[in-house]
Amino acid sequence: MVELSKEFVFIEKNFRSLAGEGALGLKDDAAIVKISAGDELVVSADAMVEGVHFFSSDPPDTVGQKLLRCNLSDMAAMGATPLGYLLTISRPPHISEEWFELFCEGLRRDQETYKIFLLGGDTTRTEGNLVLSLTILGTVTQGLSVKRTGAQEGDELWVTGIIGDSALGLKALLNELEESTGYFVNRYRLPQPRVGLPIAGLAHVAMDVSDGLIQDAGHLVRANQLGVTIELEKIPFSQQARSLSSAWLETCLTGGDDYELLIGISPKNSKQLQEISHRMNIPVTQIGFFTAKHTSVKIINKEGHEMKFSNQGWSHF
Amino acid sequence: MVELSKEFVFIEKNFRSLAGEGALGLKDDAAIVKISAGDELVVSADAMVEGVHFFSSDPPDTVGQKLLRCNLSDMAAMGATPLGYLLTISRPPHISEEWFELFCEGLRRDQETYKIFLLGGDTTRTEGNLVLSLTILGTVTQGLSVKRTGAQEGDELWVTGIIGDSALGLKALLNELEESTGYFVNRYRLPQPRVGLPIAGLAHVAMDVSDGLIQDAGHLVRANQLGVTIELEKIPFSQQARSLSSAWLETCLTGGDDYELLIGISPKNSKQLQEISHRMNIPVTQIGFFTAKHTSVKIINKEGHEMKFSNQGWSHF
Repeated sequence: MVELSKEFVFIEKNFRSLAGEGALGLKDDAAIVKISAGDELVVSADAMVEGVHFFSSDPPDTVGQKLLRCNLSDMAAMGATPLGYLLTISRPPHISEEWFELFCEGLRRDQETYKIFLLGGDTTRTEGNLVLSLTILGTVTQGLSVKRTGAQEGDELWVTGIIGDSALGLKALLNELEESTGYFVNRYRLPQPRVGLPIAGLAHVAMDVSDGLIQDAGHLVRANQLGVTIELEKIPFSQQARSLSSAWLETCLTGGDDYELLIGISPKNSKQLQEISHRMNIPVTQIGFFTAKHTSVKIINKEGHEMKFSNQGWSHF
Repeated sequence: MVELSKEFVFIEKNFRSLAGEGALGLKDDAAIVKISAGDELVVSADAMVEGVHFFSSDPPDTVGQKLLRCNLSDMAAMGATPLGYLLTISRPPHISEEWFELFCEGLRRDQETYKIFLLGGDTTRTEGNLVLSLTILGTVTQGLSVKRTGAQEGDELWVTGIIGDSALGLKALLNELEESTGYFVNRYRLPQPRVGLPIAGLAHVAMDVSDGLIQDAGHLVRANQLGVTIELEKIPFSQQARSLSSAWLETCLTGGDDYELLIGISPKNSKQLQEISHRMNIPVTQIGFFTAKHTSVKIINKEGHEMKFSNQGWSHF
């Protein structure tokens, strides 16, 4: 019988059991996916690099989960239901077999949580850092996907969950912020993608907050040629973040990695968004609105003064 | 107005013009793809690492083209029509702006040749090697995709094009083989994916030859629990390869990077395969057959003796 190559053994051992319908046991040239009539495909890709997006010392299971969740968050932002993913791994010699066992354990947990599975991918060696690239597929009813363009003057700007904890977690990992409970670090490592929030056909625009609230609100400004005014007092921060010195505010607003949704919605629909979110136990907060009076992101404090931040947002590039 | 980040400038400058319908100008969280009723989606991903799959000194346009063509070859092997692709780039500081301009020029040429376009992706920095990961999407009529399983005893084994030139090109680049014309190197850098060969519904099995003829025939053996007998005399080698010493034969059969199709087909359908291939100007050659008499890949020389090779195939892992 023909011997299996090292790559096949690696795939067999770690990834075969993650594969779902259409993946052909990860043994073929490609996977086959059925898209229901009336749906369209939504597809997105993100790469994560050791030392840039995660630390070599991060628990491997959370690295797998974070990679998946960042991509799930893109699906959530389009109002799409995730279906499956492809994964390419460029593996350097210093990443052990045990590392991949735990990495896959994280993927397995999240596959169950989010009802998705592995469709295919590629593994290769590298002499550089570990590089992981994930492409996610999802579906949305034809014509109902939520894009970044389509906001109208007077639309309310809402955000899910809590902003800033992740950025503080990164600071804690960099030893720039002291924390004893690990709360922020956990929030940094395990974002909560808002998969399932049914914004398709309800919101005018949406996107996920990955580069920091201010920078990402700026993307909405550019895409819609409308200004965004945000009231600082309304931004949802955690109790833990509020207990810190106000010097950390800029980090919270520009640090990124939140993976919450920014949603632009007509005032007449926001009640429905609130009701749905309440039923799903996903917090949503109105933090501002779209305006034609300016074409920037204005953060207004409770005295009505505009606040300025030196750093506009996080970049992995 | 909100300032564009470095990543957005990089995408705008190099990649925006490669984006097609559904890519939303590469400005959104995901792309949207319509799949015609009656078709199913076929999806595959491959990564290429600097120093592993390509040399830093390779012309950047051919790096882009090879990445795309390896993936196109996977579509061809499934009998699928390619549609578009997503690309993630992990960029180290030593790769220049000019490198990416040429890289994109190669992608642009092949997008025209193969009628596909860019759908999305991600760019990130790395301190390691340049890592490129590409996910390709295509479609095939529901139920007609060609997989690796499904061969029957007595099926003929056919191969497109020419085997071995690419592996010799790699040897030339490694200065292990002297060549003055650059023929082999060009064959290594620019494979010819057999996109459009309509094997869907015609062949029993197919796969592309990426790891070497012997190793890939072995994949068919394992997938089908049938042996494969290949007649050495029938394997299509180029005139240039035939003019070399017979010491290079093993390289040709195990070196990989051919990106030709291995096709298992009923004898009653092989005439039709020949006719179609002839019309499309794609050479096809019957090199062997599937048998229940053994469960391995047997290469038989013209005296009828089985040949043994020490190296079974190429691995990038």
